[in-house]
Amino acid sequence: MTDQVQPDTEPSRHTGRPVDDALSPRPVDVDPERLGRYIEELGRIGEAPEGGLFRFQYNAAWEQARDTLLDWIAEAGLEPRVDAVGNVFGRLQGHDDGVVLTGSHVDTVPSGGRYDGALGVVGGLAALAALAQHGTPARTLEVVALCEEESSRFAGNFFGTRAILGLVEPDEPYRLRDGDGTTMADAMRGVGLDPDAVGAAKRDDLVTFLELHIEQGRVLADEQVQVGLVEVIPAIAWETITVHGRQDHAGGTPMDLRQDALQGAAEMAGAITALVEREGRPAVATTGRWNVHPGLPSVVPGLVEFSLDLRHPSQEVRDRLLDQVHSTCVAVAERRGLRVGFEREKDEEPATMDAGLLSVFRSAAESCGVTWREMPSGAGHDSQLMANRVPTGMLFVPSVEGLSHTPAEYTELADCVRGASVLATALYDLAFRPVA
Amino acid sequence: MTDQVQPDTEPSRHTGRPVDDALSPRPVDVDPERLGRYIEELGRIGEAPEGGLFRFQYNAAWEQARDTLLDWIAEAGLEPRVDAVGNVFGRLQGHDDGVVLTGSHVDTVPSGGRYDGALGVVGGLAALAALAQHGTPARTLEVVALCEEESSRFAGNFFGTRAILGLVEPDEPYRLRDGDGTTMADAMRGVGLDPDAVGAAKRDDLVTFLELHIEQGRVLADEQVQVGLVEVIPAIAWETITVHGRQDHAGGTPMDLRQDALQGAAEMAGAITALVEREGRPAVATTGRWNVHPGLPSVVPGLVEFSLDLRHPSQEVRDRLLDQVHSTCVAVAERRGLRVGFEREKDEEPATMDAGLLSVFRSAAESCGVTWREMPSGAGHDSQLMANRVPTGMLFVPSVEGLSHTPAEYTELADCVRGASVLATALYDLAFRPVA
Repeated sequence: MTDQVQPDTEPSRHTGRPVDDALSPRPVDVDPERLGRYIEELGRIGEAPEGGLFRFQYNAAWEQARDTLLDWIAEAGLEPRVDAVGNVFGRLQGHDDGVVLTGSHVDTVPSGGRYDGALGVVGGLAALAALAQHGTPARTLEVVALCEEESSRFAGNFFGTRAILGLVEPDEPYRLRDGDGTTMADAMRGVGLDPDAVGAAKRDDLVTFLELHIEQGRVLADEQVQVGLVEVIPAIAWETITVHGRQDHAGGTPMDLRQDALQGAAEMAGAITALVEREGRPAVATTGRWNVHPGLPSVVPGLVEFSLDLRHPSQEVRDRLLDQVHSTCVAVAERRGLRVGFEREKDEEPATMDAGLLSVFRSAAESCGVTWREMPSGAGHDSQLMANRVPTGMLFVPSVEGLSHTPAEYTELADCVRGASVLATALYDLAFRPVA
Repeated sequence: MTDQVQPDTEPSRHTGRPVDDALSPRPVDVDPERLGRYIEELGRIGEAPEGGLFRFQYNAAWEQARDTLLDWIAEAGLEPRVDAVGNVFGRLQGHDDGVVLTGSHVDTVPSGGRYDGALGVVGGLAALAALAQHGTPARTLEVVALCEEESSRFAGNFFGTRAILGLVEPDEPYRLRDGDGTTMADAMRGVGLDPDAVGAAKRDDLVTFLELHIEQGRVLADEQVQVGLVEVIPAIAWETITVHGRQDHAGGTPMDLRQDALQGAAEMAGAITALVEREGRPAVATTGRWNVHPGLPSVVPGLVEFSLDLRHPSQEVRDRLLDQVHSTCVAVAERRGLRVGFEREKDEEPATMDAGLLSVFRSAAESCGVTWREMPSGAGHDSQLMANRVPTGMLFVPSVEGLSHTPAEYTELADCVRGASVLATALYDLAFRPVA
């Protein structure tokens, strides 16, 4: 089937259509100069003097990015459009019904990098610029810069995608406020949008969504594989684990009389890691946020809160691991004379990428001569919402050092071009020679 | 020797003079009504509306406490005096040379309680009020309210005691500033003191210092022993332990590729506790302050700083334990691919209480019919500085639930009276019938 040596992980669970050279699509090459320029120029929009991007939903940097993208879309021979919530589209009209959409989000986390989200936007645009040279497709192709994914300004996670899917409540722009107290509605008016018109962003003409993104992990980089074909976006659970002990004077309280909340929490954190490590890849658990009270060197901590982020592509496995986490923590607490409580902060379902699109990506990667592996996503993405509505596929390129959400996040231009070319080739396959 | 059942700890290392009924001092009873009133009234000076005392060096509450104490001192038939730094004294003049001093500090931690420090002041005052009824002593007796021990306003730990011992640098009042930027010199002027006269507070006439204090631990309360006779104040070491790992995305980084600083630090904290527990009482180690970076649920921590407070009455044992802590942490770091660093923040020597005074306390407790045990102090006290210069003795009363440095700190009045009566009986022994 393929001379690709696949890394030592579980084999693909999707068979799709066989990779056959006779059926392989013609590779579509994305222009490295164009893509490099896009990355460079978009990467300066919203950059702080000390580095790091602050491109938040509807702020000045976001407006500048919107206008720049509209210029590039027109230059590339595509039809520019901004929808009711500020999603920016570039369209290559086809003969038939149905739109094949590609893209990602244009907003960043605070002090974010140039690739997370942005690469999927400019990679998709560079892909459509290349495809526009191939004449008129059967299906219409569109690239999108989604207006919000990161919740960096409003607690409006996936706002752009939710608007497209009709999942934004009419009062949401009036309810959500940023850190300065500005409502999203006022912020929308400030960039020329009508907060009462969000319903108009809903679309029913999409047949496919493809998203190019950096991996935000080190699997591809470590294994020197050029693209990752995402099989599933994990079921993420967030909990706050609260450990109640007894606050005591550090000097006056012998070790054997203590009920130290921190010591209990530290043991729990270690035990959680151990049980998730026993489960093996791709299960991950992270205890990243810690509040230790009262937080003084000379006081035995009486109360500790720490966060748990637990992820697995199977919700069933994730929930079983959560049960084990709970019983492990309760056992530690009981042995140490502590109390422990759990509060669920986030409970997302996994999203399975379309098997047919995985197959399209495999063929595209083969014809582009790009090494690939199938893999789960670690992070959440717009694709996880899209996948509930339309067949969705996701493509990763390597992140140097696995970095993301930092100004240091970086992907070699050659890797970006390879990813965008695989995307363009897949889009050609889907839009210029659709099977159905 | 004694029918006192001693708890299951190491026996006293001090023999002193034998307890012999024929030589036992006559018990001096402190007036419960008087002591109760002192505790109650002083406990309202500096109290916030929501509870908790904020009586800091030279603030308005401190001034009010000073004036109240001067009134009480005069009422009790003692000679009142304020020294060059604001230490308040009450004197019962004796026939011979040499001053037997008792007392503690009058300042509190932020949101402090009514007993830490204050009990030693008002207990000493109530003791001298009782002793004033016995005529003129051989040696002069004084009670002192030391102006500063907790460093709650200025970083001037033990300022009152250091002034008495001649350990305050002349420029210190000009160097130290509070959180509002006010120098200690200006604060001194505000309460009628001359910052250029701190040298005048030095005394060379002290022959003994006795301090009554709450235990700030739960040993006496748990064992239902009425007073603790302090043998030694521990050698305290504070370190900041810094663990460097690698910051990674929680979703994108498989467990086996992580270098999680928090997981390493949690293991170190557990290992430190385990090795100090193996050492046994009275060694204590506390990891009370934690900074986990970047402190987000979805990010594998790349950097953790935590505090270590390690105490043992023997500096040699403490330093051996510190060495073990360091090698244990380094081993954990190496196994996990982390780096660890140690910064010493505090390095105090132990202070041994006078063996003869321990014996005086034992006799006094016996004649008062009060149960007692010898024990190390957990916390640091003014006595640890005094002990370097004059024979010093320290007496603990139980802290309910072991609480201190909180508005909830509490000692039953009956326990306060028992402690003050043992103190008064010891003072009688030392001042009215001195052996030398």
